[in-house]
Amino acid sequence: MRNLSLLTDLYEFSMANGFQQDLPATNATFDVFYRRVPDQGSFVIAAGLQQVVDAVRDFHFTTSDITYFRELGLWSDAFLTSLSQFQFNCQLRAVPEGTPVFPREPLLTVTGPIAQAQLLETLVLNILNHQSLIATKARRLTYAAAGRPIMEFGARRAQGPDSATYGTRAAVIGGATSTSNVQAGKQFNVPVAGTMAHSWIEAFPDELTAFRRWAHYYPDNSALLVDTYDVLNSGIPNAITVFKELRQAGHEPVGIRIDSGDVAVLAEHARKMLDDAGFPAAKITISNALDEAIITSLLQQGAPIDNFGIGEKLITSASAPVLSGVYKLAATEIDGQLTPKIKVSASREKLTLPGKKQVYRLYHAGTRRAFADLIALETETIMGTSTLAVYNSDPLSLNHQQRLQNFDVEPLLMPVVPSDFDQRSVQQIQADSQGRLAELPAATQRLVNPDSYPVYITTDLYQLQTELVAKAVVHAN
Amino acid sequence: MRNLSLLTDLYEFSMANGFQQDLPATNATFDVFYRRVPDQGSFVIAAGLQQVVDAVRDFHFTTSDITYFRELGLWSDAFLTSLSQFQFNCQLRAVPEGTPVFPREPLLTVTGPIAQAQLLETLVLNILNHQSLIATKARRLTYAAAGRPIMEFGARRAQGPDSATYGTRAAVIGGATSTSNVQAGKQFNVPVAGTMAHSWIEAFPDELTAFRRWAHYYPDNSALLVDTYDVLNSGIPNAITVFKELRQAGHEPVGIRIDSGDVAVLAEHARKMLDDAGFPAAKITISNALDEAIITSLLQQGAPIDNFGIGEKLITSASAPVLSGVYKLAATEIDGQLTPKIKVSASREKLTLPGKKQVYRLYHAGTRRAFADLIALETETIMGTSTLAVYNSDPLSLNHQQRLQNFDVEPLLMPVVPSDFDQRSVQQIQADSQGRLAELPAATQRLVNPDSYPVYITTDLYQLQTELVAKAVVHAN
Repeated sequence: MRNLSLLTDLYEFSMANGFQQDLPATNATFDVFYRRVPDQGSFVIAAGLQQVVDAVRDFHFTTSDITYFRELGLWSDAFLTSLSQFQFNCQLRAVPEGTPVFPREPLLTVTGPIAQAQLLETLVLNILNHQSLIATKARRLTYAAAGRPIMEFGARRAQGPDSATYGTRAAVIGGATSTSNVQAGKQFNVPVAGTMAHSWIEAFPDELTAFRRWAHYYPDNSALLVDTYDVLNSGIPNAITVFKELRQAGHEPVGIRIDSGDVAVLAEHARKMLDDAGFPAAKITISNALDEAIITSLLQQGAPIDNFGIGEKLITSASAPVLSGVYKLAATEIDGQLTPKIKVSASREKLTLPGKKQVYRLYHAGTRRAFADLIALETETIMGTSTLAVYNSDPLSLNHQQRLQNFDVEPLLMPVVPSDFDQRSVQQIQADSQGRLAELPAATQRLVNPDSYPVYITTDLYQLQTELVAKAVVHAN
Repeated sequence: MRNLSLLTDLYEFSMANGFQQDLPATNATFDVFYRRVPDQGSFVIAAGLQQVVDAVRDFHFTTSDITYFRELGLWSDAFLTSLSQFQFNCQLRAVPEGTPVFPREPLLTVTGPIAQAQLLETLVLNILNHQSLIATKARRLTYAAAGRPIMEFGARRAQGPDSATYGTRAAVIGGATSTSNVQAGKQFNVPVAGTMAHSWIEAFPDELTAFRRWAHYYPDNSALLVDTYDVLNSGIPNAITVFKELRQAGHEPVGIRIDSGDVAVLAEHARKMLDDAGFPAAKITISNALDEAIITSLLQQGAPIDNFGIGEKLITSASAPVLSGVYKLAATEIDGQLTPKIKVSASREKLTLPGKKQVYRLYHAGTRRAFADLIALETETIMGTSTLAVYNSDPLSLNHQQRLQNFDVEPLLMPVVPSDFDQRSVQQIQADSQGRLAELPAATQRLVNPDSYPVYITTDLYQLQTELVAKAVVHAN
């Protein structure tokens, strides 16, 4: 286990030092949420909670850390002593990993002594922003591939080792079926996959010899890379020769991989050549700078592709490489007295939702068909049988009132106890995520120009927000 | 030290297993290079070598790794035994970190037993691609800021912990002056910086009280965040009140930070208000979703900004989040007999340069003004006094011959001995990098539509490449 406690912006420590002295009895609640979905999608797949839990379980500062802090000369001795004896005692609530979440919905909340809750900001955001980003991109690729496996192949183009390994975990949550990354395979028990590189072919006197040697070592894992020289005139004919030899020796070939050229045209010819040679079950894997738009287009054209290997476009979410999740103060509490907090801004879009809140998914009564989400104050009771007046949560909307009735509700934020965290396998999280996705309207799941899914706030929350906005200018002076 | 030896694509192990049995006496040379510069720049700043050296120094497999490999059931017992006794014995050559390198120039070469050299591919690329990408982006931001400090503020939006911490190291190599990331600050001895977040302001009854309490704790580090409520009507007036109190108590204020709104307009008003109040030395820091184009535009308008805090656009290189460095077989060698290798491809752009090579920077004789680079076979002697016939290295160019004379040469690839690696400080690497940049033509350094800098290959290398292309189709059959 790596200690990530220093992966924190300097100002978190500076604020914590001040908070501890000025506001020793104040508890704070911070919400993690985001405002915009990458790639103009309609939702994000939450991921990274497991690593947040791992990090807070292990949150501590070493003697060497404290020495470094002392050299910085910014903070009080009392604060440094408290860091050296750090005991995590915040309460966490979070949506389970794999849950689709919409803009402005808290996906994690942290409640605890304000100094300590503040100190977690950077680390929590780093982990959740990264993994949720990659899970969301993997979901898009999985949707585009329409049932065909998505293999994660991006380790060499990832933004450092964690980007590769934790990114792979997130990719599997979002739907990837396997990875080339052995570290991720071992660490998260994910299937590992991959065939040879061009260097294997080039190291032998000719392509046929290289294929034969591969088949010798991996007779039951013989996926052959056919584009080192000339796919149609050399790669596939040589592959077919070796496939026939394999079959004679009692092994069935896996298939071929194409990594360059017009993969649709090549796959079509390759399919015919393999079929004609008696290998209709040999799979065609494509791995050439693919993203969800290219996959959609290839499949629209009818390209006979069985597997997609995705490199940099998945592991960095290259078309939208940032999820801008934020960590915002929602409330403070002294001796049980709650004070809801709001952040106003010159840009109305940045207006926050005050108070301690719960997020509900709303279903048509008696079904698992979700039609909206609802953000309520934690103290409110949300019942599906009553009629409920709600407002659009988007501060850029007209905020006109809606009335809801005859729905079932399910709360999404669940308590997280780090010492007793239910650790699902990554595959189980993937399966649960796909179940959650199936509940959403088809029009919301679409990749391009999806129908926006309503996220409402209760009348009480709306009124609280409105009051606090009005007061904010007064507070400023 | 973390063991990163498993951060490797599965196929590297599969190839190594085969190579070790089929080609036990074969040494291989692999080149790391890239073909395209992110953001349409003309060069990349090499970074990450230190971490490559750290990783190969520590390259080993644990008992648990070997058990995992055995469960995969793919590789021979002899191979697994050799992994459990892994001894690094490749030779590395690399350009020093901070060196500007151009497309197709090897920035690292690995020579050694082919199984072992193959095994390093994924890890080496992961580290070099990531850190060189971020160093290159930081160079662009530094150029745009024209002498004003660039502060790295991106930890919360980075792609996982390594992306934040090693990304910060790379950002400093590329010119960043400080970071908010305490882990990076401690680990790489980089100055740490930062002031309060909005949550500090919101946690107090009003903005003035929040500023006063900050000034109380940090009288000599009082950079105040002025945009929580209203920059011009509340934030700056309150800041000035506190600055006056600070001065009366014998402290000079640091300045203000603005994180939202039109920062040019706000900075202009803020500057005037601070000057009029007697604080002309108070700095204005801006930190709102900045990139090199926005910085250029703000400074073009004359916005009085002293410091730039850069978040996601730097730490993820958001506008171009991937450097596509590759690791290509350049030669094999058995009993001292060298066989140069080439990778041909349907796309001519992907044609590689065969053989063991050296990269030279060419200077106008007697000056430090570089005018071109030259890639030569390692066996060639490059002297500036003779006349040299060379070809453009770009396989998409017309490849017409040029003649060069009266130049000085300097080789860029230097031997790297992991056990005796000269570890410069990150600041020293930054300074050396800026020296190297100053040698390049101004037109090549420009951010937008830079003049392309010629990278030549020698006649011998050109002829070798041409011969091997002709032979490649024959090899395929």
